[in-house]
Amino acid sequence: MTRTKDPLKIVVAPNAFKGALSAPQAAQAMGRGLTRSGLACDIDLMPVADGGDDTLEVLLARGGEVRTFTVRDPLGRPVEAELGIMPDGVTGVVEMARPSGLKLLKPAEYDPLRANTYGTGELIAKAVEAGCSRIIVGVGGSATVDGGVGCAQALGAHFLDEAGREVKPHPGLYDRIARIDLEEVLPGLDRVAIEVACDVENPVVGDKGAPAVFGPQKGADPEMVKLLDRNLDHLFALAAAAGRPDVRHLPRAGGAGALSGGLMAFFGARIGSGIELILDHIQARERLKGADLALTGEGRIDFQTLHGKGPMGLALAAKAQGVPVVALAGSVGSGLEGLEEAGIVAVLPIWSGPLSLEEAMAATAELLEETSARVGRLLKLGQNLGRTE
Amino acid sequence: MTRTKDPLKIVVAPNAFKGALSAPQAAQAMGRGLTRSGLACDIDLMPVADGGDDTLEVLLARGGEVRTFTVRDPLGRPVEAELGIMPDGVTGVVEMARPSGLKLLKPAEYDPLRANTYGTGELIAKAVEAGCSRIIVGVGGSATVDGGVGCAQALGAHFLDEAGREVKPHPGLYDRIARIDLEEVLPGLDRVAIEVACDVENPVVGDKGAPAVFGPQKGADPEMVKLLDRNLDHLFALAAAAGRPDVRHLPRAGGAGALSGGLMAFFGARIGSGIELILDHIQARERLKGADLALTGEGRIDFQTLHGKGPMGLALAAKAQGVPVVALAGSVGSGLEGLEEAGIVAVLPIWSGPLSLEEAMAATAELLEETSARVGRLLKLGQNLGRTE
Repeated sequence: MTRTKDPLKIVVAPNAFKGALSAPQAAQAMGRGLTRSGLACDIDLMPVADGGDDTLEVLLARGGEVRTFTVRDPLGRPVEAELGIMPDGVTGVVEMARPSGLKLLKPAEYDPLRANTYGTGELIAKAVEAGCSRIIVGVGGSATVDGGVGCAQALGAHFLDEAGREVKPHPGLYDRIARIDLEEVLPGLDRVAIEVACDVENPVVGDKGAPAVFGPQKGADPEMVKLLDRNLDHLFALAAAAGRPDVRHLPRAGGAGALSGGLMAFFGARIGSGIELILDHIQARERLKGADLALTGEGRIDFQTLHGKGPMGLALAAKAQGVPVVALAGSVGSGLEGLEEAGIVAVLPIWSGPLSLEEAMAATAELLEETSARVGRLLKLGQNLGRTE
Repeated sequence: MTRTKDPLKIVVAPNAFKGALSAPQAAQAMGRGLTRSGLACDIDLMPVADGGDDTLEVLLARGGEVRTFTVRDPLGRPVEAELGIMPDGVTGVVEMARPSGLKLLKPAEYDPLRANTYGTGELIAKAVEAGCSRIIVGVGGSATVDGGVGCAQALGAHFLDEAGREVKPHPGLYDRIARIDLEEVLPGLDRVAIEVACDVENPVVGDKGAPAVFGPQKGADPEMVKLLDRNLDHLFALAAAAGRPDVRHLPRAGGAGALSGGLMAFFGARIGSGIELILDHIQARERLKGADLALTGEGRIDFQTLHGKGPMGLALAAKAQGVPVVALAGSVGSGLEGLEEAGIVAVLPIWSGPLSLEEAMAATAELLEETSARVGRLLKLGQNLGRTE
């Protein structure tokens, strides 16, 4: 057996460290650490996302164009939000949280019976106008439980009551909707493939549905949850009766307050696993091919990570290529036994001592760089230990 | 170049993780983690100490005998304390903190003008009676600033006033000492080599002296510090005038409230660096020879670690044998740039997230085991990455 003299090929593929660093910033810090370690390696920075935060930056990490528009926020007020156009010039990227995210509201403004995705629809319309033939809609972090009605109205759909009057995109009012009219939707939209990048498995209605599971964090009390569940059920039953797909119990259709389901029911969108879809679009499999190591990371890694979140999707893709994975985490929980089966060699916490959460968040870039340098030095040591001299 | 098929030889050599794990317990946890990692390795558990906590366990880690005696505590009350006899049967080990440590007193009992090392002297006498020809006295954690007068009295020395009356071993009274009489010291003591294992560099008197630096934590207010400094100066000037070594400004003579200096001045003890002396006695250099890796650790590693504390002494010994060192730490501070020069490849914190100090202390064994397993897995990965298949 002989030893390679070539530098190792390392793909650095972290998720965001939520509240501390974006995925691209995390990748840069990790790359700096590896470089500093003295490990002979070629580094490919490939930050990842799962449809939520940083989806736009991640998809545009190797180029593309960002255009900013003034659209409506969840409560109808003007807000600036970005549309991404990938380097191919025909794939648009809309991160729904930018126009319609909970982060745009103060807690006192949370209003799940009124908040809607109109602004997301406006951005999709801009992408269509820009000539996009494919639009990736990243869902996650929404302020809304509107079933995508606001979005659909912005794209020309009509939701009419018995008297033929437009019903506002306020989910508290959906019991009034008697008919959905898609005759006047934006010209060209029918030729656009919409792909929803969704990181949750929830359906639209029921115990695991969008209102029951995500309603409370958007301000819904138990009565509102019941009302929202009933109104979304009514809305999508109506769509199904008109020959559209019945999304009510479909996994992932509950993403972003059932924006996922609305985009599918009204516009034929495909709903995919966020991480899978994004790995496709950044050519992750090709870039992992022949790599010696993938270094990933996330704010917290625990047993939930085993269920399809960013690092796990990356790990599975790497495993399929025979590439070992090392993961860094802001904090490490228990129940990680299954990680090794997924090809994760080691999960390293970046915490360096009795830091408060605030201190650690503020120091995340530095801690990530340090920990990456340690990984590099240990790998280099392992390489040398393998050697007989 | 070919690759060894033999398991790696790893010496696991941590200090204590103060307040959480003894050095032997830490070594065991680290050994478990390495074993669990799947790295092919032979493990030599070699816990280390620097004269303070765990010195006795560390020196007796591979056998020997522990005898327990009732002696006097720093305030003259009975306390049980251990004397160690190393496997050679002729080397005694006295950890001064067991009979004379601050940990034996409640804070309200701290009394630097009276607390003394009489019990330490009693244990040394037991070692002489047991036939020891060499006695290692580990200093550190003392409640005393008595210049070893209590210890010397227990061994038969007399400290007399102008009228020829014995002065009590209360350092507040040393201004009364007019003559030191060593005629009646324990028979056989003159044929015993006393080695003081000391982890501080402080002299007996002055700004860096034992009263000024360590007095306050033993209960001395500024007035007491001045009095103690003056009285120790008087005591050791008297010894010097009688032809004994003048230890007043000697580095390390201030260890354990100048017990170090007293043992040298009254009984010709040799004062050595704690870690160096203990590494000698556990045959550290022989055991490191030919090892592939030394895994060390301590509760906290920071820039102070660069100044002769446990892991650094071990690292220097390992470096001298060409053995790379990886260190684990409860917490990792800054200013570690010099560590690499000392042969430390990487310092890994064992913290796994936003734990309080109390939580981390309680979980130290588990965290150490986890982190050691990570080190093992990364080294194994590095070995494999070096391989062309």
